[in-house]
Amino acid sequence: MTRQRAKHSPGFRVPDVIAQKRDGQALSADTITALIRAYVADQVPDYQMSAFAMAVLFRGMSVQETTALTLAMCASGRRLRLGRRGGPNVDKHSTGGVGDKVSICLAPLLAACGLRVPMISGRGLGHTGGTLDKLEAIPGFRVGLPFKQIERQVRRHGLALVGQTRELAPADRKLYALRDVTATIESIPLITASILSKKLAEDLDALVLDVKVGRGAFMKTTEAAHALAHSIVHVGHGVGMHVSALLTNMDQPLGRAVGNALETREACELLLGSGPADLLECTLALGTELLLATRVAKRAAQARQMLKDALASGRALQKLEAVVKAQGGDPRVVREPDRLPRAPHRIIVQAKRGGFVHDVDALAVADVCLRLGAGRTRADQDIDARVGVWLRKKPGDDVRAGDSLAEVHAASAKLGQQVAAELADTYTLGPRAPASQPLLLARVGRKSSTKL
Amino acid sequence: MTRQRAKHSPGFRVPDVIAQKRDGQALSADTITALIRAYVADQVPDYQMSAFAMAVLFRGMSVQETTALTLAMCASGRRLRLGRRGGPNVDKHSTGGVGDKVSICLAPLLAACGLRVPMISGRGLGHTGGTLDKLEAIPGFRVGLPFKQIERQVRRHGLALVGQTRELAPADRKLYALRDVTATIESIPLITASILSKKLAEDLDALVLDVKVGRGAFMKTTEAAHALAHSIVHVGHGVGMHVSALLTNMDQPLGRAVGNALETREACELLLGSGPADLLECTLALGTELLLATRVAKRAAQARQMLKDALASGRALQKLEAVVKAQGGDPRVVREPDRLPRAPHRIIVQAKRGGFVHDVDALAVADVCLRLGAGRTRADQDIDARVGVWLRKKPGDDVRAGDSLAEVHAASAKLGQQVAAELADTYTLGPRAPASQPLLLARVGRKSSTKL
Repeated sequence: MTRQRAKHSPGFRVPDVIAQKRDGQALSADTITALIRAYVADQVPDYQMSAFAMAVLFRGMSVQETTALTLAMCASGRRLRLGRRGGPNVDKHSTGGVGDKVSICLAPLLAACGLRVPMISGRGLGHTGGTLDKLEAIPGFRVGLPFKQIERQVRRHGLALVGQTRELAPADRKLYALRDVTATIESIPLITASILSKKLAEDLDALVLDVKVGRGAFMKTTEAAHALAHSIVHVGHGVGMHVSALLTNMDQPLGRAVGNALETREACELLLGSGPADLLECTLALGTELLLATRVAKRAAQARQMLKDALASGRALQKLEAVVKAQGGDPRVVREPDRLPRAPHRIIVQAKRGGFVHDVDALAVADVCLRLGAGRTRADQDIDARVGVWLRKKPGDDVRAGDSLAEVHAASAKLGQQVAAELADTYTLGPRAPASQPLLLARVGRKSSTKL
Repeated sequence: MTRQRAKHSPGFRVPDVIAQKRDGQALSADTITALIRAYVADQVPDYQMSAFAMAVLFRGMSVQETTALTLAMCASGRRLRLGRRGGPNVDKHSTGGVGDKVSICLAPLLAACGLRVPMISGRGLGHTGGTLDKLEAIPGFRVGLPFKQIERQVRRHGLALVGQTRELAPADRKLYALRDVTATIESIPLITASILSKKLAEDLDALVLDVKVGRGAFMKTTEAAHALAHSIVHVGHGVGMHVSALLTNMDQPLGRAVGNALETREACELLLGSGPADLLECTLALGTELLLATRVAKRAAQARQMLKDALASGRALQKLEAVVKAQGGDPRVVREPDRLPRAPHRIIVQAKRGGFVHDVDALAVADVCLRLGAGRTRADQDIDARVGVWLRKKPGDDVRAGDSLAEVHAASAKLGQQVAAELADTYTLGPRAPASQPLLLARVGRKSSTKL
């Protein structure tokens, strides 16, 4: 037998709890709380927790059960203490997509509008890095701040862009690592509790969720995305947080840059006033949700105008500079993105014939970036911040033979050439302009869902 | 993190295998074989195996998958080498019931009919002990024999009544212990592979399965019992063994004795010619299956007569004496069951009024025996061989007020008195004789199922 032994008895029979869930019975809040407490205290071995997680995956959890799970996981660690004097505390969470650098644009914009954004991000596994990886492309930038410093920085600058600390929802950290290796990630209640337990620890008033849908997203269908959005919105309410969700299209990459330093560059460019339209639209829509949720704005048009003003005035840019400086990074990068590290090889992907771009498969672009070294498939892998792809042409664009479709930024010329050939194949061209695809698909609030 | 680390990589991604099963895909025989091999080699941690087991519990396994699992679990250990010169090798497996001492009656009967019975039993958890516990009530009897000695003894005497050795299906041993604490016992393919992997290691030609159905059984309904019987019969065929199954009633205890020494006594009494009718009927029906399966008998009536002859001639009794002696026990016990250990206190349960016994709840009797110390709920518990219940009256029997309904055999007078009061309540009496309940419910063979 190689089985671990639990250090102490948890005081209840874990196999009975697993059997209850296996048989489709609802668990009481007390049972869920006791289970999570015992798990964090190493009184429940992983082999019982993974069987439990699989039973949850098949049987689901009610809003009440998921709420109890969220609260228990949050209670396993510390919560930020931000108070309410400096404005309401808000955050955005994205389920992850290709070219999704919205956090780096949105957090400074919201801070510039008077909200406080204690943005604690995960690193995540994926074809390209997470927000933390993108920020770490800035020379000197530190994402690992102590708890007290996060609190101070949010109070002072209105925002922090940091990684998950040890104190934050350790139950989620432990359970997520287990789910990752036991094929139990894909459970809506478990995803819900994982996200919300950390957000609850941020002491938020409001959260907006960006549920990416499509080929380049975790959620491939709007049905699955709706289910997740509903779960998070309702459980969010259960734990005392205002949550709304936008479902946004992830068939094409968001913006033009994919890869860590390249995405940070694009985010800075947006704050400098020259970002791509889809990235701007996504950022404004999510920001509007939070300004309305916190009643800082009364109507959507007003919220949108506040965000645009924060952008045009340069106040959002100053917020990003301030936070980069506070977290040890070189603040000049924000206005001079050329200071970001650059890959030694840049290969142009040329159009072989003319036409209109109909499609650029987000997943194919992500695969290419993973091969270049921009992402990781295991938590212990290093990534190369410099590499990635810059899409010169996106769906709807008019192309002539010989035009540059995209640039590949690679660490080696050989790999760059290979990847460039593959990238060319992901472009679908047609003789006529394609119908434009909507970026914003739907909004899910507690009382209603709206198709956008 | 308290997670165990796998010693070596198994050479394939276990989370992918779990996800395949989770998503309802069939696994290839190669995948199943590799998984079991890696698990036994400690290359797959328990937390992945328990998640896998839970996915199997929900998604099931095809006959092909279960066959591969059975073969892989059997291949994890050694197989007996019995040859075929001394007659075909057979065994019986019961899913377990209250008062089920059939093995101790049947194995010597079959050996006396010229079959070889390498009967390797589990100890099992339950209200009362398993066959091994019953046999260990015989002073000196050893159930733990080395592999070579089991082979020699079966060749010489035609039977062995022994416990599972370390060499036998270690994959099953490890997986069963894990399933026991992760609420994953109740999976028909996993139960099938667990039983058949060990039976396959016994080098059998034929196996008969006694699927107990009713209140005192693991399978509460005939539907569940049919499903298990079908699975074992078909997978048995897949691994090259003739398997048939009888579904037998377990609403009432089998025979009159419940408790380890008491049951051994009753088994000896049966071989001495004075066993209860239901126990004899069950034994003959199961024996008939094996004599027909091995073509030692051509027709059921002939098989039945062979068994009755073996009983009446005393040849079966001699076989039991020989095996008790060979395994270190006192062979005089077989003809003089008074030599079995006896509990110090015997409390009579008296009928308060007259009538006909309609019902004696097998589960209630079992609960009483567990409280007396006859069973175990954890593998490391000791049991008291002496204690138990002897039912003087069973359904259909005519009772007068003051008659003895049952005897409680207890280690302490106080506990015995408490239990006697409870036992009285498990008797349901009525003014008229009840309709007799059938003992044999159905037969499941590879080509047909028959209601009996």
